[in-house]
Amino acid sequence: MKTVLIGAGNVATHLGPALQTAGCHIEQVWSHTRESASRLADRLDCAWTCDEMEVLPDAELYVFSVRDAVLEDVARRVYDHLLDVRSFSAEENAGADAFFVHTAGSMSADALPAPRRGVLYPMQTFSKNRAVDFRRIPIFVESETDEALLMSLGEQISDRVLTLDGENRRILHLAAVFACNFTNHMYDLASRLLADHGIPFSVLLPLIDETAAKVHDMAPRDAQTGPAVRYDENVMRRQLAMLSDAQTAEIYKLLSQSIHDKLRPEEN
Amino acid sequence: MKTVLIGAGNVATHLGPALQTAGCHIEQVWSHTRESASRLADRLDCAWTCDEMEVLPDAELYVFSVRDAVLEDVARRVYDHLLDVRSFSAEENAGADAFFVHTAGSMSADALPAPRRGVLYPMQTFSKNRAVDFRRIPIFVESETDEALLMSLGEQISDRVLTLDGENRRILHLAAVFACNFTNHMYDLASRLLADHGIPFSVLLPLIDETAAKVHDMAPRDAQTGPAVRYDENVMRRQLAMLSDAQTAEIYKLLSQSIHDKLRPEEN
Repeated sequence: MKTVLIGAGNVATHLGPALQTAGCHIEQVWSHTRESASRLADRLDCAWTCDEMEVLPDAELYVFSVRDAVLEDVARRVYDHLLDVRSFSAEENAGADAFFVHTAGSMSADALPAPRRGVLYPMQTFSKNRAVDFRRIPIFVESETDEALLMSLGEQISDRVLTLDGENRRILHLAAVFACNFTNHMYDLASRLLADHGIPFSVLLPLIDETAAKVHDMAPRDAQTGPAVRYDENVMRRQLAMLSDAQTAEIYKLLSQSIHDKLRPEEN
Repeated sequence: MKTVLIGAGNVATHLGPALQTAGCHIEQVWSHTRESASRLADRLDCAWTCDEMEVLPDAELYVFSVRDAVLEDVARRVYDHLLDVRSFSAEENAGADAFFVHTAGSMSADALPAPRRGVLYPMQTFSKNRAVDFRRIPIFVESETDEALLMSLGEQISDRVLTLDGENRRILHLAAVFACNFTNHMYDLASRLLADHGIPFSVLLPLIDETAAKVHDMAPRDAQTGPAVRYDENVMRRQLAMLSDAQTAEIYKLLSQSIHDKLRPEEN
């Protein structure tokens, strides 16, 4: 399947090679920055461009992995370009029949202007320089026009492909923000506290690992420990007083209150 | 070393067997609830009591793993009891020469009234029914009178024993609240969102595991992804609107703002 990758960020950097391994012929990468476009194109051994007007018009699949804020604009410009080229081209099936797919958890398939469109949402946190095993990443797909094709594409790159409608995908993405982005921010706030006192972050790793491992076997509400669930007011008051950063202190208060409100205090 | 365990909660339930395996003779468990005391005593094959006045007075080591809020009171009552018994006893070395140790990250060694005292803080999240490998738990010890003894005791149960003063231990405990308790609360909030829509929590586990695994290799600030670090205002506004629970919405706002304030927005 001749494929153009629109975007060269964290998701595209991992999805591109996975698609290529699965047999997609990635012919071109578009990104609005030269450096990102050329770097990913090098890796995929394909062409690249920063100009929507130079996007190859004869691919079968256009995969959009760009920021949600620009997705509709970029997809519209690419689509208009395909229509333009098609009207001057003798080639059948170019442009308007292409399958447009985006990878955004929170965006509707309707964000794409092509009649054949769908969503392939790989639920994982991607950083450019860190390898991930795509086969273990749950992928959620949705397409009114091409569900079977998208399922089959998903199954070529992952062992866990599920169909999910847009509303539930948005819930999933929101849950992922809590379970990943906000969790990582808790790690970051902890690392800043330790750094201020010259303590290496690595001492927290066994605790971080066990906290994640626990919820494989127990519901998070049953796994909770610490001063907030015990409602140990003395400890909480003293810990709050140790936080010199006002925003971090506010987070401490709000999260301690939320733990207390959502869970019954337990005997330690 | 003849040992009495004061407390039968999450920490004592794991520390007791670890100390026993390491060669401590645990003679008795005290807890203010019969059920906890008898359950742990069964496991350790030792006596138990709920009455401070019945705590065995002739042990060498008294390990206090009770809620911070009651630590000073319980330790004081046990100590006074030892002094009482000693004054009527012919036995040498009973009571006043006993080594008192507590396991609380946020409490000073001074919370204990005995002249020989120290802190042994195992930094981990313990739940009664979940096994942990104590050898991999970092243990932080502090004692003005018996540091070598406490180090040696720690090294019998863990491969990672470090001395740490009270101020740094309190910082570590505060960092652990962020990296463990608050992180687990993020998992809990995510699980509640999913449950409201009939989506099983297990779909999040690969994401949770990768989020934890990433910070073994990257600083948390470099590992961050998602709408807040991209400052994708449309997504954040829509996600906020999906949160019907006012407190959870407040958490979403505050954490997104904190991620944005602490990290530069990056291109996705």
